[in-house]
Amino acid sequence: MIQKIRLKRLIMDALDEDIGSGDLTTSALLTGGESGTGRTVAKSEVVIAGIDVFREVFHAFDNELDFMAYLRDGEVASPGNVIAEVSGRLQSILTSERVALNFFQRMCGIATLTRKFVDMITGTKAKILDTRKTVAGHRDLDKYAVTVGGGQNHRLGLDGGVMIKDNHIIAAGNITKAVQLAATAIPPTIKIEVEVKNQEEAVEALAAGADIIMLDNMSISEMKKAVSLIDGRALIEASGNVTLSNVREIAQTGVDFISVGALTHSVAAADLSLTIVAE
Amino acid sequence: MIQKIRLKRLIMDALDEDIGSGDLTTSALLTGGESGTGRTVAKSEVVIAGIDVFREVFHAFDNELDFMAYLRDGEVASPGNVIAEVSGRLQSILTSERVALNFFQRMCGIATLTRKFVDMITGTKAKILDTRKTVAGHRDLDKYAVTVGGGQNHRLGLDGGVMIKDNHIIAAGNITKAVQLAATAIPPTIKIEVEVKNQEEAVEALAAGADIIMLDNMSISEMKKAVSLIDGRALIEASGNVTLSNVREIAQTGVDFISVGALTHSVAAADLSLTIVAE
Amino acid sequence: MIQKIRLKRLIMDALDEDIGSGDLTTSALLTGGESGTGRTVAKSEVVIAGIDVFREVFHAFDNELDFMAYLRDGEVASPGNVIAEVSGRLQSILTSERVALNFFQRMCGIATLTRKFVDMITGTKAKILDTRKTVAGHRDLDKYAVTVGGGQNHRLGLDGGVMIKDNHIIAAGNITKAVQLAATAIPPTIKIEVEVKNQEEAVEALAAGADIIMLDNMSISEMKKAVSLIDGRALIEASGNVTLSNVREIAQTGVDFISVGALTHSVAAADLSLTIVAE
Amino acid sequence: MIQKIRLKRLIMDALDEDIGSGDLTTSALLTGGESGTGRTVAKSEVVIAGIDVFREVFHAFDNELDFMAYLRDGEVASPGNVIAEVSGRLQSILTSERVALNFFQRMCGIATLTRKFVDMITGTKAKILDTRKTVAGHRDLDKYAVTVGGGQNHRLGLDGGVMIKDNHIIAAGNITKAVQLAATAIPPTIKIEVEVKNQEEAVEALAAGADIIMLDNMSISEMKKAVSLIDGRALIEASGNVTLSNVREIAQTGVDFISVGALTHSVAAADLSLTIVAE
Amino acid sequence: MIQKIRLKRLIMDALDEDIGSGDLTTSALLTGGESGTGRTVAKSEVVIAGIDVFREVFHAFDNELDFMAYLRDGEVASPGNVIAEVSGRLQSILTSERVALNFFQRMCGIATLTRKFVDMITGTKAKILDTRKTVAGHRDLDKYAVTVGGGQNHRLGLDGGVMIKDNHIIAAGNITKAVQLAATAIPPTIKIEVEVKNQEEAVEALAAGADIIMLDNMSISEMKKAVSLIDGRALIEASGNVTLSNVREIAQTGVDFISVGALTHSVAAADLSLTIVAE
Amino acid sequence: MIQKIRLKRLIMDALDEDIGSGDLTTSALLTGGESGTGRTVAKSEVVIAGIDVFREVFHAFDNELDFMAYLRDGEVASPGNVIAEVSGRLQSILTSERVALNFFQRMCGIATLTRKFVDMITGTKAKILDTRKTVAGHRDLDKYAVTVGGGQNHRLGLDGGVMIKDNHIIAAGNITKAVQLAATAIPPTIKIEVEVKNQEEAVEALAAGADIIMLDNMSISEMKKAVSLIDGRALIEASGNVTLSNVREIAQTGVDFISVGALTHSVAAADLSLTIVAE
Repeated sequence: MIQKIRLKRLIMDALDEDIGSGDLTTSALLTGGESGTGRTVAKSEVVIAGIDVFREVFHAFDNELDFMAYLRDGEVASPGNVIAEVSGRLQSILTSERVALNFFQRMCGIATLTRKFVDMITGTKAKILDTRKTVAGHRDLDKYAVTVGGGQNHRLGLDGGVMIKDNHIIAAGNITKAVQLAATAIPPTIKIEVEVKNQEEAVEALAAGADIIMLDNMSISEMKKAVSLIDGRALIEASGNVTLSNVREIAQTGVDFISVGALTHSVAAADLSLTIVAE
Repeated sequence: MIQKIRLKRLIMDALDEDIGSGDLTTSALLTGGESGTGRTVAKSEVVIAGIDVFREVFHAFDNELDFMAYLRDGEVASPGNVIAEVSGRLQSILTSERVALNFFQRMCGIATLTRKFVDMITGTKAKILDTRKTVAGHRDLDKYAVTVGGGQNHRLGLDGGVMIKDNHIIAAGNITKAVQLAATAIPPTIKIEVEVKNQEEAVEALAAGADIIMLDNMSISEMKKAVSLIDGRALIEASGNVTLSNVREIAQTGVDFISVGALTHSVAAADLSLTIVAE
Repeated sequence: MIQKIRLKRLIMDALDEDIGSGDLTTSALLTGGESGTGRTVAKSEVVIAGIDVFREVFHAFDNELDFMAYLRDGEVASPGNVIAEVSGRLQSILTSERVALNFFQRMCGIATLTRKFVDMITGTKAKILDTRKTVAGHRDLDKYAVTVGGGQNHRLGLDGGVMIKDNHIIAAGNITKAVQLAATAIPPTIKIEVEVKNQEEAVEALAAGADIIMLDNMSISEMKKAVSLIDGRALIEASGNVTLSNVREIAQTGVDFISVGALTHSVAAADLSLTIVAE
Repeated sequence: MIQKIRLKRLIMDALDEDIGSGDLTTSALLTGGESGTGRTVAKSEVVIAGIDVFREVFHAFDNELDFMAYLRDGEVASPGNVIAEVSGRLQSILTSERVALNFFQRMCGIATLTRKFVDMITGTKAKILDTRKTVAGHRDLDKYAVTVGGGQNHRLGLDGGVMIKDNHIIAAGNITKAVQLAATAIPPTIKIEVEVKNQEEAVEALAAGADIIMLDNMSISEMKKAVSLIDGRALIEASGNVTLSNVREIAQTGVDFISVGALTHSVAAADLSLTIVAE
Repeated sequence: MIQKIRLKRLIMDALDEDIGSGDLTTSALLTGGESGTGRTVAKSEVVIAGIDVFREVFHAFDNELDFMAYLRDGEVASPGNVIAEVSGRLQSILTSERVALNFFQRMCGIATLTRKFVDMITGTKAKILDTRKTVAGHRDLDKYAVTVGGGQNHRLGLDGGVMIKDNHIIAAGNITKAVQLAATAIPPTIKIEVEVKNQEEAVEALAAGADIIMLDNMSISEMKKAVSLIDGRALIEASGNVTLSNVREIAQTGVDFISVGALTHSVAAADLSLTIVAE
Repeated sequence: MIQKIRLKRLIMDALDEDIGSGDLTTSALLTGGESGTGRTVAKSEVVIAGIDVFREVFHAFDNELDFMAYLRDGEVASPGNVIAEVSGRLQSILTSERVALNFFQRMCGIATLTRKFVDMITGTKAKILDTRKTVAGHRDLDKYAVTVGGGQNHRLGLDGGVMIKDNHIIAAGNITKAVQLAATAIPPTIKIEVEVKNQEEAVEALAAGADIIMLDNMSISEMKKAVSLIDGRALIEASGNVTLSNVREIAQTGVDFISVGALTHSVAAADLSLTIVAE
C-alpha cells in the first residue's frame, strides 16, 4: 500500500534535488536522439521491494520510457538475475537512474533485512514489527518495504495508535487512569498500548483494559512470565535490542509481536547495478 | 554548510509526516501544563554531526523549548556522555523527539562511519569522498555529515560537476571529443572528470584536458600505474568496492580521492537514547 | 488537538485566497497609522470552538495584533456576550477579519450542533461520533470542533481505522475471511469495524472477531435485538439518518456510539458579529 | 468558471488529507483486480452543481476510471434520478468516493439553496448575490455553485472590488473624500461600492460618484425611499438578514442586488447516495 | 500595496534558487563570526521602489541583520546617495545581497521609467497605466513599482477586469451583445472595457454601456475624434506603441489613460551598488 | 538545458498568478465551443529562444491545443516571419496567450541581446558570460536563453562555483590562504575564481592556484598587462561596465571570458505579436 499522491510528490522533489539546474554532463554530450536500455541486475541475494517506485521515478522524469519488470515485490533475486529493464531516450535514463536506484536499493535493503528476521522466527506465532525510526519523507516507503519482507507495520504515525509510556503515566496519575483517559479521548477505532517494565505494571495495564502490552527491554525469563500472566487477554509486543541472534529466543517466549528498529534506521542498500546495454 | 531554507521545509514536512492529525497519546494524557527535560546520551562512541538540525526540529515544533548542546559537530561522544538536553513543555518534547532523533542519529551515523574511513588513511594524501547515493530529500544533510566526519564532498548534484562515463563517450565519439564538447557547454567554474577503465583511457583523458580522472574498479597495481602515468597533471579519484579493509592500500597508491558509496547508502543510525528526566 | 503545522499552512492559504493581490479598499483609504479594536459578540447562544484558530488567523496576518479571549473552547456564549477582542493596526484587522470569522463561525457552528445532540442523550451510555463527511482541508478543524461540543471522533481518515462494508466482504469472500485478512494486514494498533445490516451478519462479525459492529440503518427494535445479542463482546455503532428527534431513542437501545454526518456536512455558521469599536 | 490549476491542487490535497498513509481497509481486502460501478442517485430534489469537480476527483485518483454524467450543472435531479456513474477498478472507487461526494454534495447544496432564493424573486429585477463568507480553500467552488443556482457573484476577493464601510470613511474623513481617494488608487476596471445606513449617506455616496450603494440592514420602507432617491444613478445592493421569507419583499423595493451570506456560510449537503452496483 | 504572504514565499524561493545547496565561497572562507555593513548607493538618478522588499530579503535570510533605510519609496536618489545599509553577520550579507539587489534594482528600474512617462504628461488629465506584460511571479511587485513611479495599475489579472476584444465580439455576435452578456455574468464590482479600432466601434461600445473604451493603435487625430465623440460618457484608454516621444501628444488628445507595456516588459535594472564597508 | 520539473511548476504558478479566480472576459463571452489559431509573428529581428517554453505554457493550460513551431531556438526571425501557431479551443488560447508571451518575449529578448554581444567579438577567442543578475524564479530560463544567443553560462548559483572577493580575502587573511582554504572545503569538481583589482593581486592569485582570475573594472591596458602576465596559466574573466561599444576592445586584450550583467538584468522584451486568425 503506497499512497500515490505522496509518492509522486516525493519523487518529483528527489529528481529536482539531484538534477538541480540540469544534468550538465548529459546535456553537453548527448544530442537527445540517442536511445538505450538500462538493465538492473542483482549482485547479491535481494528481496525485491518497490519495483513500482523504481518504475515511477523513470516515468516521472520521462513518461515515454519503457519499463519492464522481471520480478515482483516479494520475489527474491539471486546474483546475476535481471530485475528490470528501462528503455528509450538515453538522456532520460542517464539523468534519472541514480535517483531511481537510491529509492529502490533502500527499499530492497529493508525488505531483505526484514526477511532475515522473519525467517529466523518461522514456526512461532510472533510477527516482526517495524517502528517510527524511519528516514524523514520515507515513512510510507520504508513501512511498505517491511511488509514486503514479511513484517507487519506498527502504527504508521502518532495519529495511528496510542502508546502509553512512563511520562504519560506519571502525567495521568497511574496506568489505570491513563488507559481510561485515553479511551474516552481517542477514536474508538484506535487501540491502546501500554509500555511496561515489569510484571506488576503488566498486571495493572491488563486490568485497565490495555489492548496491547509492550514488554520493554525485558529478559527472556521475564517475557515468559509476562506471557503466561497475560494469557491471551491482551496482545504482547517485545521491544528493545532485538537482533538476528536473539530474535528466535524472544519469539519462543510466546509474544505476539517483536519490534525491530534496525529494519528502517540502519538500512544497507541492496547490492544492485544498472548497466546501459548496447542498442 | 546546511542551507537553512531547505532545512526548515524538510523538518516541517518530517514533523507533519509523523504527527499526521495529531499525537493521540500525548494529547489525551497530558494537560499541556507539564514540563520536563529530555537528555540525549551516547550509548556507543559517536561522532557528533547535525546538532543544529537536532535543535532545529525541537524549535520548529515549539520555539519556546530550551536546547543545550554539550558537544559540537565533529566532537566525539563516548558511551554515557550527555550530548544535549531539551527542556520545556513536556508535550512538545514527547511529540517531536522521534523526528529529531531520526535526523540526528542518521547524521551522526554517517559522520561516525566517515571518520573510520578517514582514520584508516591517515598519513596518505588521499581524501575520502562521498557520492550521490543519498536518501531522497537528505542530500544536503548526508553530505554535510560526511564533511563533519572528515570527508570531502564529491559533486552535490548533477549540476555541480561533469562526470563523463562510457555512454557519454560513445555518444560524443571518443574521450577527446567528449571533453572538448563539455568544455564549451558548461560554466567555466565546473571541472570535467572522466571515468576510465585502463591506462589507455587514462592517457587519452589526460591529453584531452580532463581535470579529474576516475579510476573505475581498478586493481591496486593498475591504480599505481595510472598514478605514475598521470604524474600530477590531473587529479585522480579511485572508485568501486571500497571498504574499511582495502581503503588504506588504495590510498597508498597515491590517488587524490577515494569515493565511498556506503557512507550514505548504508547508514547505521548512531546509538543514542533520549530519556525524560525528572523535573 | 489541532496539528499546528497544518493549521498554519491552511490559514496562510486562506488569507492568500481572500486577499489575492491585496485589499484594495483598505490600502486605498487607510494610511496604516490607524489603530482600533475589533470586538466579537455572540448574537445567539453559541458553543465556543476554535478560539485559538481565530487568534491564529489574526496573528498569521499581523503578529503585532493583541488578541484577548473572554471565553474558552467549550464554554457557551449567550447573545450579547463578548467573546474576544483584537486590537492594533486597523488595516490588519479589517483585512483579516473575514477569513478569521469564516474559520471561527464554522467551528462554533459545529460545536453548537454537536452539543445539541450530546445533550439529547444525557444519561445514556452512548457517545456521539462524527464521520469523514467534512469539507476538504478542514478535516482536523471540523473534528476538533466536534470534540469541543462533547462528541467523540470516529476514524480521522482512511488510515486510522478499518471499516469493512459490503463490497469489501464480497471481495474477501465472507465476513469471517474479511476480518481475518484485515487483522494480518494492518497495524495491530488499529481496530476492525464491520458494517452489518441484520442480526445474522452481526453474529458472524462478532464470531470473526470484529472490534466494532456498525448497525447500518436498522430500526430501533432491530438495534435493541443486536445490542442484546452482542452483549458487550464488541462495541456497537448506530448509523444512518440520525436526527435530533430520534437520537435519544437510538441511544436508549444501548448502543455505544451514534454517528451523525450532519455535524460536519451541514454546518450553520454560528451567529457572531465583529464590530470595530472606537479607539 | 472554475480555475483548473487551483482545482487540481485542491483535489490532490483533499485526497491526501483523507487517505493519509493509505486506505487500510481497501488495501487489505481487495486484490486490485476487482472492478465495479458506483452509481450516484439523488435522494431529494437537488440542483446539480460541480459535476466536473465530481468527475475530476475520481480521475485525479485514478485516470482510468470511466465517468458518465447523466445530468449537467444547473439541471434538477428528482429523488431517485441517477446523476452519474463511475466505473473501473473497484479499489479506486472505494478509496476516492468520500472525497468526491464531499465536494459534490456541498456544491449541489449551495446551488439548491441559491435556486430557492432566486425562485422567490422571479419577476423582479433583483439579482441574488453571494458574499465572501465561504469556507477556506473553497472560494471558487462555492461561488461557482452560486452562479449555477442562478445567483450572481459579488466580488471574488478583496482585490476584486472596493467596499467602503464605516471605518474606511472615518479614516478618509468623509464619504466624498473616501470615494475620491479610492478612485485614484485602484485599477480603473474596479467599481466603488459604499455601504450606507441612511438616506443622508446614500445621497452623499451618490454625489461622490459611488458606482454601487449598499443599503445596510435597512427596513423595507427605508429601502424603498433610497431606491427612489437614487433613481438609477447608481446600482443598489440590499444586505443584512435576508431569508427566504423576506427576500421577495426586499426585491420588490426595486433594489438591483440582494446579498445572502447563508448561501455559502450555512450549507446543507445535498442528499445524494453513491452505491456500488453489481459487476 | 504588496501582499505579504505571497512576497514571503517569493523571496524564500528566490533565495533557494540562488543558494542551492549552499554558498560554497562564503561557507569555506568565513568563520561565521565576522560582521560588516553593506551600503547601497545610487550610481545614477533612481526613483526608489521596493525598499521594504529589499529589507525583507535580508531578513528572510537572517532576521538578526539590521537594516536602515535612508530613503522611502517614491523618493529620488541622486548619484552617490546612500539608499540603505544592512549590518550584522557578514556571511549573511554576502550570501543574500545578490538576490536582494535583483529584486530591488528591478523595482527601482520600473519606478524610474514610470516616473519619466508621468513627468512627460504633467498638466494633462491623463494617467499612465501598466499592463499584464510582467515577469512570471512578479506581477504584484512590478505593478506596485508602477504606482510608486506615479502610474496607476490596469487590471491586476484576468479576474480583475473585463476587456472585450475582437475575438470576444465575434463569439458574442456584436459589441452590444458582448457587453450585455458580460454584464450579467461578472461580479457587479467589475467594469467592462471594450477595445475599438475606429469611431463606429467606439459609438457602439458607448451605446452598449461600456465603462471604459480602449482606443487601439489609433492616430492622434483619430484619438481626438473619439474623445470628442465619447465626451465623458465613458473612460478612455489609449494603447499601442506608446513611447517617451509620443506620450505627451497622446495625453493632449484628452484620453483618461495611456497604457505602456514597456514599463514592465522592458525593464533596465536601476544602477545601484552594494559595497561592504569596514567594520 | 531546461530542467523540466522546475519549469512545469514555474509555468503553473505563472498561469495561476495571471488567471486568479478565472478569466472573466473569456468565460462570459465564449461558450467553449469556439476554435481558432493564434499566430505568433516577429515584428523586428529576433533570435528565437524558449520555443519549448512557449509551447509548454499552452499545453500546461490545455494539453489538447496543437502547437506548431516554424523556427527553432537559435534561429533568427525577420520581421513578418511566422514563428509558431497554436490551434484549438479558442478560450484556452485567449486565456493563456499573455503568460506564454511573457515568458517567450523575455527569453527571445535575452538571446537577441546576447547575440549582439557575441557578434561584436567574432574572431577573438573570448566568450560572453552571463551573471547571477537574473529575475527571481527565472535563473534557469534566463541562463538558457544566454546560451541560445551564443553566450556561455557563468556559475548557475552560489553552489556552482567559488568566487573569492575582497571580503572573503580579508576574512581568510590573504589571497593565498583563501584559495587554499577553499580548495579543501569544496567539491573537487568546482573551480576557484579570484577577483583581482591589479597586477599584484593577479600574480598572487595565480601563484595560489586560482583556476580563474577575474579582472575587475580594469582599463584596457591593465587587462592586456594581466593577460600577458598570466600567460595562459589560468583562465581570465573581464568584468565591469561592459557595453556593445567597448566589448570588442576588451575581447582583443586576450581575455577568455567577458561577463555582461545587462544580458539578464536589463532585458527588452522581443517585439512579437500573437494574432488570432480566422477559423
